[in-house]
Amino acid sequence: MEFKKIFLPESELPTQWYNIAADMPTPMEPPLHPGTGQPVGPDDLAPIFPMNLIEQEVSQDRWIDIPEEVMKFYKIWRPSPLYRAYGLEKALDTPARIYFKNEGVSPAGSHKPNTAIAQAYYNKVAGTKRIITETGAGQWGSALSMCCALFDLECKVYMVKISYNQKPYRRLMMETWGAKCVASPSTETNAGRQILEKNPESPGSLGIAISEAVEVAANDNEAKYALGSVLNHVMLHQTVIGQEAQKQMAIAGDYPDIVIGCAGGGSNFAGLTFPFIRDKIHGRNVEIIAVEPSSCPTMTRGPFAYDFGDTVQMTPLLPMHSLGHSFVPAPIHAGGLRYHGMAPLVSQLVMDGLIRPEAIPQMETFKAGITFARAEAFISAPETTHAVAMTIREALKAKEEGREKVILFNWSGHGLVDMAAYEAYLNGKLADHELPAEEIRRALKDIEPLPKPRQYLAGTI
Amino acid sequence: MEFKKIFLPESELPTQWYNIAADMPTPMEPPLHPGTGQPVGPDDLAPIFPMNLIEQEVSQDRWIDIPEEVMKFYKIWRPSPLYRAYGLEKALDTPARIYFKNEGVSPAGSHKPNTAIAQAYYNKVAGTKRIITETGAGQWGSALSMCCALFDLECKVYMVKISYNQKPYRRLMMETWGAKCVASPSTETNAGRQILEKNPESPGSLGIAISEAVEVAANDNEAKYALGSVLNHVMLHQTVIGQEAQKQMAIAGDYPDIVIGCAGGGSNFAGLTFPFIRDKIHGRNVEIIAVEPSSCPTMTRGPFAYDFGDTVQMTPLLPMHSLGHSFVPAPIHAGGLRYHGMAPLVSQLVMDGLIRPEAIPQMETFKAGITFARAEAFISAPETTHAVAMTIREALKAKEEGREKVILFNWSGHGLVDMAAYEAYLNGKLADHELPAEEIRRALKDIEPLPKPRQYLAGTI
Repeated sequence: MEFKKIFLPESELPTQWYNIAADMPTPMEPPLHPGTGQPVGPDDLAPIFPMNLIEQEVSQDRWIDIPEEVMKFYKIWRPSPLYRAYGLEKALDTPARIYFKNEGVSPAGSHKPNTAIAQAYYNKVAGTKRIITETGAGQWGSALSMCCALFDLECKVYMVKISYNQKPYRRLMMETWGAKCVASPSTETNAGRQILEKNPESPGSLGIAISEAVEVAANDNEAKYALGSVLNHVMLHQTVIGQEAQKQMAIAGDYPDIVIGCAGGGSNFAGLTFPFIRDKIHGRNVEIIAVEPSSCPTMTRGPFAYDFGDTVQMTPLLPMHSLGHSFVPAPIHAGGLRYHGMAPLVSQLVMDGLIRPEAIPQMETFKAGITFARAEAFISAPETTHAVAMTIREALKAKEEGREKVILFNWSGHGLVDMAAYEAYLNGKLADHELPAEEIRRALKDIEPLPKPRQYLAGTI
Repeated sequence: MEFKKIFLPESELPTQWYNIAADMPTPMEPPLHPGTGQPVGPDDLAPIFPMNLIEQEVSQDRWIDIPEEVMKFYKIWRPSPLYRAYGLEKALDTPARIYFKNEGVSPAGSHKPNTAIAQAYYNKVAGTKRIITETGAGQWGSALSMCCALFDLECKVYMVKISYNQKPYRRLMMETWGAKCVASPSTETNAGRQILEKNPESPGSLGIAISEAVEVAANDNEAKYALGSVLNHVMLHQTVIGQEAQKQMAIAGDYPDIVIGCAGGGSNFAGLTFPFIRDKIHGRNVEIIAVEPSSCPTMTRGPFAYDFGDTVQMTPLLPMHSLGHSFVPAPIHAGGLRYHGMAPLVSQLVMDGLIRPEAIPQMETFKAGITFARAEAFISAPETTHAVAMTIREALKAKEEGREKVILFNWSGHGLVDMAAYEAYLNGKLADHELPAEEIRRALKDIEPLPKPRQYLAGTI
């Protein structure tokens, strides 16, 4: 069959999310209360999340029905098309057959609305009036703003101040969709004021922004907090990507030898790969690769440990690959991959040998982004270029070995709101960031003073 | 049938372009040579266009085959989805059924690649090594850059200097695709140097940029010039939009009472509407509305006349609605609609009463853009908001009249690279621009000193 892309009709949209918790070879370690060191229960989370989402967070059901109302809104951009990358294959002169799933077709330009729409829906039915969140580069904040507009919910986004100032387009998207976007640290919260007292010029950080958002949500009966990655229910919602891709690969008459996604908190990666990892658990021969930046090598150089999700230690302790909650990644342009930890589900699957983590330096990713843009027309988000770069590595390896490998990757979003990153690359203003082992060791020390003795579950630097 | 959008499979992609020249009720007036006042022949155009495109420009064939190579590249983003705007219908509480064709799914974010890919192809087979063009806000320049990358052609874009400085993202898109983008007026051309000598601080204009591009193309044997709107072959290439929409409306079981597009040079408007105008010529009852900005009211306040396409009077004289080639529109954010003329084909159809032109002020268009973004999620380009605003007017009229009208409009592109325009609106920095009749009269005087006595074909201010 000759084709460039495969559309699924709306009738083929998956009707259930796939919950990989039901198939984990190793049972998950529970999250721990930061004060007591005891496993947290649903009640501990109730002040900041609605109970229907908490139930999903701890569910062991393999399949969870997607509510009709969520399906209705998924249809704004889903099913997303699956592409055959003939142009890239030709540019690389590789015998590999390369496919990518285009998640850039959502109105926000990335995969983030897959969970934003679900979270907005569950909050709406739970009676939430407003959702509070944080955002770094702005992909998540803009996606949630859009979904809150569709469900007529108020939305407030604490955006890391340096991004707020440097990336006005994402903030403007949020405001166009009716959200309120505040530069963090702000004077609106105790956490923000505390930071500003120490350093009035603080550029902010994701950790600080999380603290502000959680504080506001916890102190407002009508508000809840929302997170765009890391947590189990977020991974769950993203599995529509991989389920669609499986149907589309079947229509194409192919099955991937390799499935690739970039991973910051892990959600777009999990979304594409979890349904394929299920196949792998059932004996299918498929390699799963998670790509992270060399300058934030959570899976490749961080241990599997109990650590906080935020810098100021307000969240539960999560069992995950981490570089330590005080680790400050270099200011690479892939803002969505600058996170010290990794989703617990993804981390455990790395431990179990079902996922192969790889780290790629920034310059290689932008070179790949340019190659892709000129061969396939689409301009990739800086995060997405990591998956593109890994795909190119594997396609060239297939060429060297003379093997017709089938490679599938998640094209998680377009880069049209991130062109400043391409400018830096094209004008020779970018470089790779070395990350000395001492720097990681220093940050990892922060993981030590935890209430539980087994905070280091495994791994070394 | 319940649906949100209708995908056509690639096998349903139109295989021919529709040439409305074959069905015009009134024969077209010919373009005239600026020096002699005589009709221009193909040879006059040969220095700047390849002969295969000149043949299309003058063709009277109703259907023109789309080359297989062009079809291959169309499949990167075509067929584009047709949407039912349930969200907007609900927000307006209207009995109207609203549909829109989403041309924002192209990698450049607009309809422009429909003709850019064809023009790149025809230049490639004609042996052109590089294509020279101009761009205002950058939609066309970026689309052509992308298509030149796909055909391995060099591309040079003269971008109006004020936009070059104010809209770096579009320029960066061009550079990412490998094009060279130059601020116009530049010191590279006689035209540019001439302007800069008079005014070193010149912010540039589309007219100046056209002069620079044409000069460079005419003086380089390996180069040709390309235009992104106005000309017959550009309208032709865009008709894939309307042909797809007709198939999709049939699948939806509906036929539009009203078809709407915004019109600057006329190409996205023509692309959607020409196949429906064909139906109308054959007796179908369908209203066709072309929407322009109140501050650049080419069709609603400009006469049908012979005028130059550019400010410095280098192009042939075209029979078109025009405000005069020296007219300088107010600096509205819909840069793609700031053009003094209108495509001759569209102009003639307005004269024949087959198209109803309407002008809408800027503030109303942004209000419509916000309503649309919060109801349908997609953020519209400032040009596209004109079509949205007209759709809202008609939907509210249908509500008033209690009639189930079917409205179809062209969602010609997304606004993610134009967020500064939304910022201005949201922060109360935008206003409507009054356009006194004296100002138009002054600009229209420039049309007078033409070699032919019938330069005013019809119309008044």
